[in-house]
Amino acid sequence: MKNEPSNNYEGMITMNKVLGIIAEYNPFHKGHLHHLQKAKQLVEPDYTIAVMSGNFTQRGEPAVIDKWARTQMALKNGIDLVIELPALYASQTAELFSAGAIQLLHMTGLVTHIAFGSEHNNLDELDMAARVLAEEPAEYRVLLRSYLNKGLSYPFARMRAMQEYFSCANWVKTISSELIESIFRGSNSILALEYLKALKRLESPIKPVIIPRLGASYNSPSLEGEFSSATAIRSAILSGKSWDSVATALPIPSLEILRETISNGWGPVSIHSFDQILLGLLRRSSTEEISNWMDVEEGLENRIKKHALESVNIEDFLNKVKTKRYTYTRFQRILIHALLGIKTQDISYYQEKGGPRYLRILGFNTRSIPLLSCLKKRAGLPIITKPSHYYRYGDKDLCTMFQYDVLAGDLYALALPNPENRMGGREFNQGLVMIQS
Amino acid sequence: MKNEPSNNYEGMITMNKVLGIIAEYNPFHKGHLHHLQKAKQLVEPDYTIAVMSGNFTQRGEPAVIDKWARTQMALKNGIDLVIELPALYASQTAELFSAGAIQLLHMTGLVTHIAFGSEHNNLDELDMAARVLAEEPAEYRVLLRSYLNKGLSYPFARMRAMQEYFSCANWVKTISSELIESIFRGSNSILALEYLKALKRLESPIKPVIIPRLGASYNSPSLEGEFSSATAIRSAILSGKSWDSVATALPIPSLEILRETISNGWGPVSIHSFDQILLGLLRRSSTEEISNWMDVEEGLENRIKKHALESVNIEDFLNKVKTKRYTYTRFQRILIHALLGIKTQDISYYQEKGGPRYLRILGFNTRSIPLLSCLKKRAGLPIITKPSHYYRYGDKDLCTMFQYDVLAGDLYALALPNPENRMGGREFNQGLVMIQS
Repeated sequence: MKNEPSNNYEGMITMNKVLGIIAEYNPFHKGHLHHLQKAKQLVEPDYTIAVMSGNFTQRGEPAVIDKWARTQMALKNGIDLVIELPALYASQTAELFSAGAIQLLHMTGLVTHIAFGSEHNNLDELDMAARVLAEEPAEYRVLLRSYLNKGLSYPFARMRAMQEYFSCANWVKTISSELIESIFRGSNSILALEYLKALKRLESPIKPVIIPRLGASYNSPSLEGEFSSATAIRSAILSGKSWDSVATALPIPSLEILRETISNGWGPVSIHSFDQILLGLLRRSSTEEISNWMDVEEGLENRIKKHALESVNIEDFLNKVKTKRYTYTRFQRILIHALLGIKTQDISYYQEKGGPRYLRILGFNTRSIPLLSCLKKRAGLPIITKPSHYYRYGDKDLCTMFQYDVLAGDLYALALPNPENRMGGREFNQGLVMIQS
Repeated sequence: MKNEPSNNYEGMITMNKVLGIIAEYNPFHKGHLHHLQKAKQLVEPDYTIAVMSGNFTQRGEPAVIDKWARTQMALKNGIDLVIELPALYASQTAELFSAGAIQLLHMTGLVTHIAFGSEHNNLDELDMAARVLAEEPAEYRVLLRSYLNKGLSYPFARMRAMQEYFSCANWVKTISSELIESIFRGSNSILALEYLKALKRLESPIKPVIIPRLGASYNSPSLEGEFSSATAIRSAILSGKSWDSVATALPIPSLEILRETISNGWGPVSIHSFDQILLGLLRRSSTEEISNWMDVEEGLENRIKKHALESVNIEDFLNKVKTKRYTYTRFQRILIHALLGIKTQDISYYQEKGGPRYLRILGFNTRSIPLLSCLKKRAGLPIITKPSHYYRYGDKDLCTMFQYDVLAGDLYALALPNPENRMGGREFNQGLVMIQS
């Protein structure tokens, strides 16, 4: 049974536009602030809702600080309401991550626009490419299959197949091979394609809005002043650099929250904090068990097992296990699947049912209280604000999905720098984050 | 099929007496040296063989330094040959630990005497008590059951049942309740009982020899000069006390080996080094999985799960989870079972087959080369000296049991202080320890 947002507008306050943002805010930096401000200028929304990953991110890493601290950052920087992307969807490929996030925004029944960054700015062109991905015409599928059979990695095979498809297609408009290549070159354009594809598949009325990217690229490893990448900021924090070196890249609320979180030993957390847990898990697991984890294609289990023995930490493992075809990030995601016990069939089960089963509110600011009451009327999914009540919905699928979030929190806790903070169960003890505004 | 030592004496050198010792040498201290010297004075053996636990010990802890360093200590202090007690048997109750160790010594086909320490010195009295444990007469069994049903812990119920049994039994000689209590009060006497019981069950010709204990008791927590307990020595090493404080309690070779091992980052290791791996494992496991681990009686799985969430490290967990009936040490052993994936049926399967399936040689000194060649002729079990060949025996049971030793080593490696030493596979790369003598 697929859920749908309700059409019940009875007794609702006037609300013309609600902006949706998909983000990790790991941590919330000036690039994020710029994006949010630009999007607000363009859309002029009454409210802004962010869908944010929890304690583990799309690249298969633990977030540098936990989801509550990051929710605080988001709210203090201008987001009105933060919804968690369930752990089952958070550490996934761009396709599943986007599908889950878009499904959540759609299910609010309130979001009218979604704004996202993209290296490639032309929405029409992105949309044409996304249509091919969403509809998967037979000719395109054949081309994709043939490139995959030639041994090309999935992202590369997809690009080639689309180039060839458009060179033969009898569409009114077409896009050149160069354009397609430029789309597939940017990690944000690829996410943008996936958002558009997910919107199409849902036949969602949400309008996409593109915000041109500014400053350092997503992966840039070094600090580059005001618009440094999140990667660079994280690595500066993790290497214990002075706060001065990252201060220029962060809005003041972010800096304050980061400093407080870290000084109390609630962060920073990196994949290294999981070295022993993860290598222990890999060494304890049989190749049969490994082959059941999500994304472990046939044969990879032996490779994983071998390198788990030959590595002294997870970074070492990832560098040894990766191949041209199976990337570092892909194996990093596999590790998160292993950690949380996610199997391929888990996610395909939920995708068949329409995606995430609940809207888990992490926090909101006080001005968005009317938004929350509208959400309760319009949402196509149960809203979780009191996690200790989650089983009361009597929905087995909801419970199972939510238990991954609980486990993600209980395992993330073990990686906290201050051993006294390593208690589990925070999912149930930590209240909603509320910010006065 | 049960194995038996061979009767083939053909071409063998004259060997009148071979002494067997069961030990953990964690680390080898002056108490151990005293024990060994006394035993040699009494038995006057041609050779001495030690059965030693590997990287995990009977109390359910990782050894403070690994089995190879401890083998070196044993050989340098007067042992001729060190055989490993398989991991499956090492972190078990006194009963299974003793059964495994005695079975190994029996299977050498060479050991004529076994010497052990005991707080209670009277062999006749110990022997009478051991006979009851070995034969389990029906009256005794009924008494034991009734005390267990009253809620008494197993060790206590056993003592009470034996007291009552002897007060009614029509044996020619009897032992008083006070004597029985004094036997069951000493942790070494209890082990002695188990050794004697195991010898009886095997109908082994090996002669037991008791060496009175000297110095601090097994568990004494503080350093007490020359005869400090291993517990006190370990805790001094782990708390980073100066070498001077432990030097008096250790023979010079032990001190040298310990210092070298620790200065190279191969130790010390404590249960704290497993905090994250173990709490991670407990939090990841369902109550159903937990209930399958060895020694987890019905209902304990919920208790374990609850306290795994409410604890910040393993010591905290053990202090919270223990009860009057289920002790700290018992839960600590359960953790090792969990770590290595040992289930109750695993050990009962092997016990039905007669115990350990191989004699794994960890090391020897050069004067014992004739002993080794006799061992090859007489042993009732395959001898493993080249671990990489273990699967060549074509014995599935041997392979399965040996894989626990391999896993124990691969997981122990993750706890080493120097991250560069955390590679797995040492079981196969590390040669036999050989000491010139």
